[in-house]
Amino acid sequence: MDIGNRSLLPMPFNYDRTVHFADTDAAGVVFFANYLTICHEAYEESLSASGINLKKFFVDNGIVIPVVKSEAEYRRPLACGDKLRVSVQPAFLSDDSYEIRFEITRLGAVGKSAARIRTEHICIDSVTRARKALPVPISDWVREGWPEGVTL
Amino acid sequence: MDIGNRSLLPMPFNYDRTVHFADTDAAGVVFFANYLTICHEAYEESLSASGINLKKFFVDNGIVIPVVKSEAEYRRPLACGDKLRVSVQPAFLSDDSYEIRFEITRLGAVGKSAARIRTEHICIDSVTRARKALPVPISDWVREGWPEGVTL
Amino acid sequence: MDIGNRSLLPMPFNYDRTVHFADTDAAGVVFFANYLTICHEAYEESLSASGINLKKFFVDNGIVIPVVKSEAEYRRPLACGDKLRVSVQPAFLSDDSYEIRFEITRLGAVGKSAARIRTEHICIDSVTRARKALPVPISDWVREGWPEGVTL
Amino acid sequence: MDIGNRSLLPMPFNYDRTVHFADTDAAGVVFFANYLTICHEAYEESLSASGINLKKFFVDNGIVIPVVKSEAEYRRPLACGDKLRVSVQPAFLSDDSYEIRFEITRLGAVGKSAARIRTEHICIDSVTRARKALPVPISDWVREGWPEGVTL
Repeated sequence: MDIGNRSLLPMPFNYDRTVHFADTDAAGVVFFANYLTICHEAYEESLSASGINLKKFFVDNGIVIPVVKSEAEYRRPLACGDKLRVSVQPAFLSDDSYEIRFEITRLGAVGKSAARIRTEHICIDSVTRARKALPVPISDWVREGWPEGVTL
Repeated sequence: MDIGNRSLLPMPFNYDRTVHFADTDAAGVVFFANYLTICHEAYEESLSASGINLKKFFVDNGIVIPVVKSEAEYRRPLACGDKLRVSVQPAFLSDDSYEIRFEITRLGAVGKSAARIRTEHICIDSVTRARKALPVPISDWVREGWPEGVTL
Repeated sequence: MDIGNRSLLPMPFNYDRTVHFADTDAAGVVFFANYLTICHEAYEESLSASGINLKKFFVDNGIVIPVVKSEAEYRRPLACGDKLRVSVQPAFLSDDSYEIRFEITRLGAVGKSAARIRTEHICIDSVTRARKALPVPISDWVREGWPEGVTL
Repeated sequence: MDIGNRSLLPMPFNYDRTVHFADTDAAGVVFFANYLTICHEAYEESLSASGINLKKFFVDNGIVIPVVKSEAEYRRPLACGDKLRVSVQPAFLSDDSYEIRFEITRLGAVGKSAARIRTEHICIDSVTRARKALPVPISDWVREGWPEGVTL
């Protein structure tokens, strides 16, 4: 397939995760807010895989990059012991913000989409709350999926 | 459409809550997914206030009413000890589904909106996963915001 | 000091709490680690009731007072919607450490003890990790249960 | 007592885990109750590795095996991104109960013990709450660490 000389979409990062007992609630399945927590873990693993030091990134060091929006579509219940794959696909919204699209797939003989989640992140000064350009390692991470010149 | 003198929106239920240490993360403020957990608590308190037995409601008893969508706009950080008020405003989407709009206000000399969250809930048979009409106590709860004497 | 016939033990602080859905797990009852989280909430409310600013207390401000030990006896399962009362009884272990004894009671026609939990806390310099004397507001809080001159 | 040529202690199961942002609190490190949650994950992985179906095990299926006691010694703070190894060492207390000893090690150039945790579990009928003998797959799991004939 000739798609020109670069990818239109980044290759997603995949994070594999087993559903833990603590993720579930009395309905027997993962509590809805914990789908977002699981996606955040995948985001952390993706940052870490690109060389970002989580210990420094996720504390207030002058700039912070909070989640300002989230949207989630919960498509299938998930039970303790289920094996999941979470794909992580970031994209720029501006020079100081990005979105991440996550898909949680329940693995099995046939993988089934269990949730689609989207988060928005804005880089701000932690004191003034004014918007700030993304630090280079983060903008590199957002861009990482589009490696220039790669033909798939 | 002539809606005469009736209310357009139900009166919201309010739930007051202090931010706990366990709600926070290493950035010093409430973890984004926990805003949704706090809203779910408010939903539970609202159901309980209308006479619904939570012990029976939130377990699988043939029908379940899972959250199928959520949208959240995180507007302000929340710190341990902050006093919150969460308003809960349900509305029918169909005879087997409803939405809830939540607003989290950080109380103080001047209350500040800290988040707006919306969830969608669909009533299904827990075995077949087919849609089922809402049980009467739940549809009463959704309608409850329209107090007696109001003509819709 | 003559303490005459007054109590050797402080009057406990009581914190009332409803069990939330997010506290539970797929066994239908509160996840064991969340009993400790509920006790920590009670500890926070007790500190707050004695005038301590939680926003400042629970962040690293040169000294930190981490939990260094916990012991828990889980005596009864707790379900979503259960009403709880948590008693909080602190006591000095030394001039730089204290313990807290918690009892979680499930309220009802007859209250039932649901858990007994004990935590140990040591005050340390957050950089050197060396032990430091408790700050006055905290030692006042530990002592608070022994109101001078009260005969029980 | 002559125990011949076999081990007094089972070989522990090891579970590797990265500290996630959601595990931490506003003090910048893992919230104390979450050490127990991390140990429970290790317990689940150990059960799963011995062929036990978690989906069936951790729901109420006539018998339940709740945690009835826990003891924890928190020895070192853990930050987001820290790599952990959790060892899991079960032992019988009776024919209807067992304990598990966990050690959480923070990995690095030199591994450091971060916590020691012990839990007690009793098998009961979920309706009558009467004690019941452990199901065979579980007693096999408890025993598993003592491979016959192994000399340490």
